[in-house]
Amino acid sequence: MFEICILGTNSAVPAFGRHPTAQMLTHMGTSFLLDCGEGTQLQAARYGQRLRKLEAIFITHLHGDHVLGLVGILTTLSLGGRPLPLTLVGPVGIRAFVEYGLAQTYSTVRYPIEFVELDNPQPGQEVYRGKRMMVSALPLSHRVPTVGYLFTEIPARQRFLFYEAKRLGVPKEKMGLLKLGNPVTLEDGFTVLPEQVLAAPDPPRRYAFCTDTGFLPELAGHIAGVDLLYHESTFLQDQEQRARDTFHSTAADAARIARQAGVGKLLLGHYSARYKELQPFLDEARRVFPHTELALEGQLISIPLNRAE
Amino acid sequence: MFEICILGTNSAVPAFGRHPTAQMLTHMGTSFLLDCGEGTQLQAARYGQRLRKLEAIFITHLHGDHVLGLVGILTTLSLGGRPLPLTLVGPVGIRAFVEYGLAQTYSTVRYPIEFVELDNPQPGQEVYRGKRMMVSALPLSHRVPTVGYLFTEIPARQRFLFYEAKRLGVPKEKMGLLKLGNPVTLEDGFTVLPEQVLAAPDPPRRYAFCTDTGFLPELAGHIAGVDLLYHESTFLQDQEQRARDTFHSTAADAARIARQAGVGKLLLGHYSARYKELQPFLDEARRVFPHTELALEGQLISIPLNRAE
Repeated sequence: MFEICILGTNSAVPAFGRHPTAQMLTHMGTSFLLDCGEGTQLQAARYGQRLRKLEAIFITHLHGDHVLGLVGILTTLSLGGRPLPLTLVGPVGIRAFVEYGLAQTYSTVRYPIEFVELDNPQPGQEVYRGKRMMVSALPLSHRVPTVGYLFTEIPARQRFLFYEAKRLGVPKEKMGLLKLGNPVTLEDGFTVLPEQVLAAPDPPRRYAFCTDTGFLPELAGHIAGVDLLYHESTFLQDQEQRARDTFHSTAADAARIARQAGVGKLLLGHYSARYKELQPFLDEARRVFPHTELALEGQLISIPLNRAE
Repeated sequence: MFEICILGTNSAVPAFGRHPTAQMLTHMGTSFLLDCGEGTQLQAARYGQRLRKLEAIFITHLHGDHVLGLVGILTTLSLGGRPLPLTLVGPVGIRAFVEYGLAQTYSTVRYPIEFVELDNPQPGQEVYRGKRMMVSALPLSHRVPTVGYLFTEIPARQRFLFYEAKRLGVPKEKMGLLKLGNPVTLEDGFTVLPEQVLAAPDPPRRYAFCTDTGFLPELAGHIAGVDLLYHESTFLQDQEQRARDTFHSTAADAARIARQAGVGKLLLGHYSARYKELQPFLDEARRVFPHTELALEGQLISIPLNRAE
């Protein structure tokens, strides 16, 4: 399972029932929170996202609509009795923001928080490694230090093709040896090689989370071929100059990056409060890159396995 | 119009769709925000509460469930182009909380904020005076410095009884003199005194907002006879010891204060996340003080005029 739950889709000022940025990524029983705007813990509860398996939080930048839910969610985890450590990755300043926020609200967090503060990270620089997920930095172009994140599955071991081994006549007690990569000679003298019964692992799935950013052509090179790209699209082309001035993107900008990078699917979000209707975002982007969807709150987006065979 | 809109009713950890504390008080075209837990601006939008006429914000204490929505709402007001100054009343530390929060999220607020920091305020001490509303302090008993607020209408001028003046034969051109408090002699030599045509102003309506607090008997003396009392009731009596230990109240505690103070109506709120059902709060309180209601999110509670005659 590799699933994104959209918790917030709006930019700075909440509007039309849309909340500030947050997403929950669930992967093989572990979850990650991507940005944490005001109300994220309430949105997570509304959409049935449990916080218990939360392993790390990734913050793109310190604008309020990406961090104001952080102190609340950290406190709630503590009041809920969380014992497990939590990793918090973000630009320099994230630690002070959390520590001041906790101290000023007389709050203590009883589990350990491991801060990973990023100071001018390089594209592709590893910023987190879990058991099954590696996360690297995607520096973005915004008014304040901002970093997107590329989530890459760590390949599982090779898959053992049980029925193929059985067909070749391997007795059960010798299957363990084969699984571990040893050749096995059968009673009839025939030898089965491990490569005959071990399939290559599934190619790792990848998700790129890119918000907030102005149009940044070199980003495409760092996310080439990802399965899913979330790219902010605060504005439509009618506000292109405003997008440039505020270091945000239009839907067409996001689609150009997606096309250039040859991604599997593009997901738009971070809509400005000036737009009530979202269909124009989809129309504008699809003219450039057809495999585009709108991020909508409560939505679940799965990335299916890329089976090798 | 003297109306409260309930925006949040839960204590520390949001649960069962209930949000942290916030209320909007609207009085004669002006509004006041009472506490500002995470998500307050989203709740205000959900329940159609406009922020444009917001004149002042009153914070009881700096626990996260009462202040974490503050930086978001202040920023949103600025992005919305607010020019008017805003008064922010709260315990010492509120200014640093807001100023750090804005600075750390690279936010600026373009309208002036006037901070009123309360350092060990006395009961009844005036903390704010608007055109038609006076607000005084109600020190409470909690784990951190906490102050409730008593909202008292400033009486309007005496009401001119137009039809009574007409009945007495006062010609229109002399009514202005009477309104200003002068006696008027009619053509027939009869004199009309201002007290004959001026009614006493409506007795001021009062609302006491008391959260968070342990059972505090002396509070009753400071809120005697208020029209409406909001008193926290985090727990039921089954958790009385826990209420004592954490400086919170039970529903029965709240009702005892209401009975002792002889208030018009008691409103319960700040429910603990351990309770899904709220009816037991109402039942417990009504056994002590029948004029009790539950605060429920989205609810509007009006205080009608107490006409003198």
